[in-house]
Amino acid sequence: MQPERKLPATAIIREVGLRDGLQSIARILPSAQKIEWIRAAHAAGQREIEVGSFVPARLLPQLADTAELVAYARTLPDLFVSVLVPNLKGAERAIESGAHLMTVPLSASHAHSLANLRRAPDEVVADVARMRAAIDAAGSSILLEGGISTAFGCTLQGEVPHDEVVRLVRCLLDAGVDRISLADTVGYADPLAVERLFTKVRAVAGDKLWCGHFHDTRGLGLANVLAALQTGVNRFDACLAGIGGCPHAPGASGNVSSEDLAFMLRSMGIDTGIDIDALLALRRQVADWLDGETLHGTLWRAGLPKCMSPAQPEAVAV
Amino acid sequence: MQPERKLPATAIIREVGLRDGLQSIARILPSAQKIEWIRAAHAAGQREIEVGSFVPARLLPQLADTAELVAYARTLPDLFVSVLVPNLKGAERAIESGAHLMTVPLSASHAHSLANLRRAPDEVVADVARMRAAIDAAGSSILLEGGISTAFGCTLQGEVPHDEVVRLVRCLLDAGVDRISLADTVGYADPLAVERLFTKVRAVAGDKLWCGHFHDTRGLGLANVLAALQTGVNRFDACLAGIGGCPHAPGASGNVSSEDLAFMLRSMGIDTGIDIDALLALRRQVADWLDGETLHGTLWRAGLPKCMSPAQPEAVAV
Repeated sequence: MQPERKLPATAIIREVGLRDGLQSIARILPSAQKIEWIRAAHAAGQREIEVGSFVPARLLPQLADTAELVAYARTLPDLFVSVLVPNLKGAERAIESGAHLMTVPLSASHAHSLANLRRAPDEVVADVARMRAAIDAAGSSILLEGGISTAFGCTLQGEVPHDEVVRLVRCLLDAGVDRISLADTVGYADPLAVERLFTKVRAVAGDKLWCGHFHDTRGLGLANVLAALQTGVNRFDACLAGIGGCPHAPGASGNVSSEDLAFMLRSMGIDTGIDIDALLALRRQVADWLDGETLHGTLWRAGLPKCMSPAQPEAVAV
Repeated sequence: MQPERKLPATAIIREVGLRDGLQSIARILPSAQKIEWIRAAHAAGQREIEVGSFVPARLLPQLADTAELVAYARTLPDLFVSVLVPNLKGAERAIESGAHLMTVPLSASHAHSLANLRRAPDEVVADVARMRAAIDAAGSSILLEGGISTAFGCTLQGEVPHDEVVRLVRCLLDAGVDRISLADTVGYADPLAVERLFTKVRAVAGDKLWCGHFHDTRGLGLANVLAALQTGVNRFDACLAGIGGCPHAPGASGNVSSEDLAFMLRSMGIDTGIDIDALLALRRQVADWLDGETLHGTLWRAGLPKCMSPAQPEAVAV
């Protein structure tokens, strides 16, 4: 019998529904609703939220109010506020905004990188070095995260070799990123691949590897989170109601849903600080705002088990 | 860094859609369609199928043709045919039918056992001893499996202590079962509980612990399979299109879906012998027969990854 794996005592669910979720939904949620979402997520115990993306408003009008959202989110105590930035211009706006962290996506798939960003991965690395310089020149304390997308394969080129991902991680670290995250953008990852790639990247990036981003496109989202958790990662991106989705698989499930993930971690005795009942109440609110859109997740329907309290492990009445 | 876990090289998906799935759907599928389902599942590479249950037809008219299905399934080469039996009368019919294995459900939750079977768990153990005697008296080679349901908790009594599950496993072994399976009947399990309980039961039952049965009621079905797989179990019950469901959570997801599970195992390089494209074709057929019923699963929508062949690991074109 193999020994029980040591799991992290705590974990963080970084809510990315306001960015990764809303960017793939055509309707534009009013800023007032997004602010209410951020307020309620914080009240439910969420402490890291990616509030938007500094992309041109003509490309993603849904996220045009990102600066306003950062400003609001910064007023909430102990909330770590992050944004996505696609390029140097976006990075400059992020620095100005006062966000705590910016994530730069870099696609490990050459084909996906060219199709999506119109730049090869190594050109993106060069951009990242310029962002590092801009941060330092501004005397800003904002953290710079390199988010490697299509790390487990891509719908355009198929396989993405682990060695290429590891090479790009080294490049990003050399270019000056503070953090590394790995994303299964299209739902190609499986638990064994997750264990292997996270282990390889950990060997290169150490504690700078800090977040996993999994989509549930083929149903393996939470199994992949579990595999990453077992390698020691304890921060995961997730979207309330599993919004998001894969542009290459219409109708397919999107990101891991925050509420199901919170339930899994809570069941395993891993403290996320989240009040699941409050999160489910927020889900009902957001589902109402997004009426007609395809939502995902399962916990909202079945509810919490009889023996589980909604809040913290200390309060379990068993 | 923790060492990579050794995983089984092969795994078996025991299709239980014809029993656990259909018993919770009111409509009665004609025998000819069930026979076509069994034929096509076998042709797709499935080698273990639970074809029905020997319960009185007035209780479950959907499964009244179980003897006929066993007779047909026995004609297919290398197909291991199992049935569920609730009591001694059902066991006698199973012995007559020529099935290879019969599973007796025993609810580890006292409250659930009384509500569902109108007998306490220890009374069920006494029944199992009588079934053992009947098998031996008949000179039958049918295998006797004790399937412990609500092993991870129950909607009536909440928590089910691991010690009680282990005690019942000992009782079942003493009563003469050949095999033990553990079921998360209501979707209360989490990966850590799975790892712990399977490890404890393995210590008592050894290789007689041979199957895990997980529901996806709260989204953790495949994560729980992964946790069990990591303890060395390599046989899992699943239902095509995730039919089944939990009578206590209307509308909630049911069993782990066979096609998503086949995809996860295949992605991890674990050979199930299943041609996933053929299984997805069968899913379309069954979905057509069950038009209007709630189905589950995700792979059918997104399709296989670009770099994956539908059949065996040896054939991967990467």
